[in-house]
Amino acid sequence: MSNTPPSSPGEFELIRNYFCHGFPHSADTLLAIGDDASVVQPPAASQLVQSIDTQVADVHFPASAPAALIAQRALRCAVSDLAAMGATPQGFHLALTLPDSDSAWLTGFSSGLKKAAHELNIALIGGDTTRGKQRVISVAVQGWIKHDNTPLTRAAAEDGDGIYLSGPVGAAALALPQVLNNPADYSGLAQQYYFPAVHLSLGQALLGRASACIDVSDGLLQDAGHIARSSALQLHIDTQRVSVADDQQRALCLTGGDDYQLLLCGPATLLQPLTAVFPQLHHIGECRRGEPGVVLSATDALLQQLSEQSGFNHF
Amino acid sequence: MSNTPPSSPGEFELIRNYFCHGFPHSADTLLAIGDDASVVQPPAASQLVQSIDTQVADVHFPASAPAALIAQRALRCAVSDLAAMGATPQGFHLALTLPDSDSAWLTGFSSGLKKAAHELNIALIGGDTTRGKQRVISVAVQGWIKHDNTPLTRAAAEDGDGIYLSGPVGAAALALPQVLNNPADYSGLAQQYYFPAVHLSLGQALLGRASACIDVSDGLLQDAGHIARSSALQLHIDTQRVSVADDQQRALCLTGGDDYQLLLCGPATLLQPLTAVFPQLHHIGECRRGEPGVVLSATDALLQQLSEQSGFNHF
Repeated sequence: MSNTPPSSPGEFELIRNYFCHGFPHSADTLLAIGDDASVVQPPAASQLVQSIDTQVADVHFPASAPAALIAQRALRCAVSDLAAMGATPQGFHLALTLPDSDSAWLTGFSSGLKKAAHELNIALIGGDTTRGKQRVISVAVQGWIKHDNTPLTRAAAEDGDGIYLSGPVGAAALALPQVLNNPADYSGLAQQYYFPAVHLSLGQALLGRASACIDVSDGLLQDAGHIARSSALQLHIDTQRVSVADDQQRALCLTGGDDYQLLLCGPATLLQPLTAVFPQLHHIGECRRGEPGVVLSATDALLQQLSEQSGFNHF
Repeated sequence: MSNTPPSSPGEFELIRNYFCHGFPHSADTLLAIGDDASVVQPPAASQLVQSIDTQVADVHFPASAPAALIAQRALRCAVSDLAAMGATPQGFHLALTLPDSDSAWLTGFSSGLKKAAHELNIALIGGDTTRGKQRVISVAVQGWIKHDNTPLTRAAAEDGDGIYLSGPVGAAALALPQVLNNPADYSGLAQQYYFPAVHLSLGQALLGRASACIDVSDGLLQDAGHIARSSALQLHIDTQRVSVADDQQRALCLTGGDDYQLLLCGPATLLQPLTAVFPQLHHIGECRRGEPGVVLSATDALLQQLSEQSGFNHF
């Protein structure tokens, strides 16, 4: 909108300085950053799995949080969607809107992004940087699933399937007061908020075993509702079986988001053996025919607390 | 950052109302909007070509411009990167940050996006909608190029190649005062700003013929500089041959961005025949060995004007 070109020399320099070196490589990538587009060679007999995830300053993270934490959390949250499908990460495109080109912030952001990219083994293959009033981070991630496997969707749970959860929920929600109060402190519960586990190995192990899967970003009960409606089933959850970060705040743990545990359905005969390999994986209920929704076996007191939580619409 | 889940029921409704119907289908898409990720089946022997492009309100477009115009322009600008590589569009993911859920704006945005998606034959296969202070539109587009073709990069121009341009430049830059003054008026020059041509057919026809290609988004001379540096060559451009929107404002036309013409290099024996099919395609210069940069055959007066334009760094 100005007469200066939208891609100023400053943008090229910024990309060269912060986003061109130190990221993992992908053997599938023929052309990465630096041209009009990237070029990727899909491996034979593979399906391409993709998700885009946006995080906005002061909406999804405190604007004053350390840039390295923000960057790595943004990438983790996006890659979690690949884990929930059973995919193996390949690469990502980054769209970064910034109010300024603060080099300390960019140095932190770049270093956090690289660290997470190495941990998750995902290459940065393209991007766009723009000016805007507040920081907006969009991460478009992708990965592969071999042809002979069916991606783990929300829609294929079946009557009689067991319901499992990859680990305890609630820590990220419990951490929110600390995160808001002191964004630079990533100790204790805030660790769960800033470094959510990305269950890539579990997701891949679920291929051919689970019928449905979702990552719990909106809260366990709400995300269970997504599977219930997509699969046209009732998800009966025994709330006492759900592993939570704090038993005294069970309702908040069941409805709080941002933990990125995997919630999955499938035959117990296929899923139960996985608990030997993934010890936090635990059985929390069953899928049954009926009006689609989530049915809880819970005490009156818990139900009362739950009805006061905004994250849960029963049915 | 609030205790309400980031993906509120409002977000699901918004996606269902505005982004789930009326878009073109892609036979390659196995799973589109509505799960943790989309799933695409790459066609046999194809390379995946991808680009992400962000447009921010009052930075890349007037915030008060009609939403339908903004949407279709954002998609055109993004798909232009696929054209510049020679790719055939397949699908896109949309990350949309909005200050509110103004239904009139969203209805316009959705209808403009659908119209452009149909014209460009590209499917909407996923996305994310978030809240933020200003509207930010990120479009991640992708398409295919068959294995036996080499994507058109910036780096493979050769000594002796001719330089060609797909059509006149400058209209979008000349339109800026009108666009800023009256964003709803898309007549005359503003037509070029809001509806930049996307040269998909030309891009595809260039495969096997052109050595290098770029879409002119930053201004002809600056983008010529990208090819020059990437290919380590001098691009000698005869400015009198360049077709411009207004001969009286030649310097502005040569440096103004946003036209999305294709600038390409290659053997004249292969490219000249294409001018019969693409009549606006015209020859503007030659690639030569030498210190990488753009060399102009221009009058002193034009050079003086150019040196005053911000878009051009000679060498």
